[in-house]
Amino acid sequence: MTANREGKSLTYAQSGVDIHAGDDMVGRIEHHVRRTYTPRVLGDFGSFAGCFRLDFNEKLFKRNYRDPVLVSSTDGVGSKVKIAAQLKIYDTVGQDCVAMNVNDLICQGAEPLFFLDYLAVHKLEPAVAEQLVKGVADGCVLAGCALLGGETAEMPDLYAPGDFDLAGFTVGVCELKRMITGARAEIGDVVIGIPSSGIHSNGYSLVRAIVKHAGLDLDKSYTELKSDVPLGRVLLEPTRIYAKQIVSVVRKYRVKKIVAGMAHITGSGLPGNLPRAFASDLNAKLNRKSWDVPPVFGFLQSHGNVSDAEMFDVFNMGIGFTLIVRPAFADSIVEHLRKQGEAARVIGKMVRGTGQVVLA
Amino acid sequence: MTANREGKSLTYAQSGVDIHAGDDMVGRIEHHVRRTYTPRVLGDFGSFAGCFRLDFNEKLFKRNYRDPVLVSSTDGVGSKVKIAAQLKIYDTVGQDCVAMNVNDLICQGAEPLFFLDYLAVHKLEPAVAEQLVKGVADGCVLAGCALLGGETAEMPDLYAPGDFDLAGFTVGVCELKRMITGARAEIGDVVIGIPSSGIHSNGYSLVRAIVKHAGLDLDKSYTELKSDVPLGRVLLEPTRIYAKQIVSVVRKYRVKKIVAGMAHITGSGLPGNLPRAFASDLNAKLNRKSWDVPPVFGFLQSHGNVSDAEMFDVFNMGIGFTLIVRPAFADSIVEHLRKQGEAARVIGKMVRGTGQVVLA
Repeated sequence: MTANREGKSLTYAQSGVDIHAGDDMVGRIEHHVRRTYTPRVLGDFGSFAGCFRLDFNEKLFKRNYRDPVLVSSTDGVGSKVKIAAQLKIYDTVGQDCVAMNVNDLICQGAEPLFFLDYLAVHKLEPAVAEQLVKGVADGCVLAGCALLGGETAEMPDLYAPGDFDLAGFTVGVCELKRMITGARAEIGDVVIGIPSSGIHSNGYSLVRAIVKHAGLDLDKSYTELKSDVPLGRVLLEPTRIYAKQIVSVVRKYRVKKIVAGMAHITGSGLPGNLPRAFASDLNAKLNRKSWDVPPVFGFLQSHGNVSDAEMFDVFNMGIGFTLIVRPAFADSIVEHLRKQGEAARVIGKMVRGTGQVVLA
Repeated sequence: MTANREGKSLTYAQSGVDIHAGDDMVGRIEHHVRRTYTPRVLGDFGSFAGCFRLDFNEKLFKRNYRDPVLVSSTDGVGSKVKIAAQLKIYDTVGQDCVAMNVNDLICQGAEPLFFLDYLAVHKLEPAVAEQLVKGVADGCVLAGCALLGGETAEMPDLYAPGDFDLAGFTVGVCELKRMITGARAEIGDVVIGIPSSGIHSNGYSLVRAIVKHAGLDLDKSYTELKSDVPLGRVLLEPTRIYAKQIVSVVRKYRVKKIVAGMAHITGSGLPGNLPRAFASDLNAKLNRKSWDVPPVFGFLQSHGNVSDAEMFDVFNMGIGFTLIVRPAFADSIVEHLRKQGEAARVIGKMVRGTGQVVLA
């Protein structure tokens, strides 16, 4: 907050809000936003609200919904933004922001249509904001959705210098009769896991507590991480976006409820998220040896002396997304995912139970 | 961030994130959220993403869209949240959050369908979060939209103790052929203004600079404000939600493009927002004497010694929403709005120009 130095009249600019920086930013981000546009985006960049045509009858892109259900999700990047701010690396957390939202939405069987971001900053630095929005646009391209709008709020009294927060919202659509609810999974169904890229965007308060506690250096590379990449970059690895791959699976295996349930593995890990995809009279019995836990988790666990159970309760431990599928189709779905570059694998099966994940 | 006091194992709770407070909060907000539900909301409270049925064929609520356009907007409450935090009044800014979004969306001719909120806090206090979400739910009821989802992020290192940020996101729908774009207004069209409830949710960095500069007391009532209400409460007056009234006008006067354009008057005031509703070869000529500027604006202007032009460039100055309509229907539309409790009035007309607002 700028004090009124002359004792004369106060202006909005003196109160810490720079309208010209806002105009500069809008000019910088427009081409990033337009990269995400499809013919379904209507109206002008900069109107009061973004407009998106649900049905679209062009030959190459026919979409007509009989009984469309809109599916919507909101989430933020969480305190991963603090590491980005500390390292001044601004072009990666935008992908996290998109991922956290679209990966939730696809769990219901929906395909993402569009995304909007909310960016809040101490002071609007157009070049920084451009990098942040570039990351969001990159994420939208990966997810196949349009960046339909966004808000940048400059709040010098709420955020400390250099700090920012980034959250987002997404909307997708699915046919009513193809909606995936939590009641389909059966005993004998198979759990398929898709690898995460690392920590993704949950548990960063604990990550940062461990970094501080153990005196770790974000600029240094550690042999335990089995790469030359500095720790900070490892921690900023963007969350994987599973949208196109999962939409492809859902479209290909859409009859007979072959895909019985899906879960995005976020805060509270496999034990907290996988049960959201099945009824409370089942358990998911997972074989811990069926996948490799990436080195970053062991590294954090040992430096923080964190218990095994706590690690699984907070982090994804290497599995970013899970599908519960009919056993006869499990191999075919794994193969379909592998053809799209996902190292998917069978990690467990559904048994009688009490709505829990059992790690064996 | 809690340090690891025992030098033993670190847990997520020690890092400052309280999962149990989150569960407590979810229990507290559920009945507020359910108040906003309609039969179009599908699925369970607490699933990965909110689901909303676009078409709905029940007798009492038939909605079938031929070529639906989804209209979406995101905005936050801005630094008005700092006043709420300071006064510990938490049940009003939720309405602001809904208003800032749905009032944008209706400008395109859309009707709001659903809303999602993003709440970020230093520390999750379930009773405080409940009040904030209650305000959001109240706003959704006023706007006629469902509170389909939300995210509460606890980030002790990003937000100072007691601080929070609140943003939101809304989706509405309109028929493609009824979409209102900025190209309809003509010379001779009439500008109708609908009163604001006060400052609404823009310009609070300047408001707070004036409060600080002039040493004003938020707990005190001032005679210049022409009411016994303390200044803090006047400044927290929630933003009016115009959704139901405007949707009613748009439905009633839907032929012949009688409603040529609409503008939600937010940051940058009438001069910055009204031109977004007409082409650049027109001006909106407004008669400043046609409406009363509420006392709070004069109060802030005199205590901050702010220029007239700056006041109009930052604040709504008493007009929260404007419609540009065909002259033959202006009286009828004013009457229709008045019947719904809006003190709408003609405040100007469209003339040849350069895309400006002229205040006469």
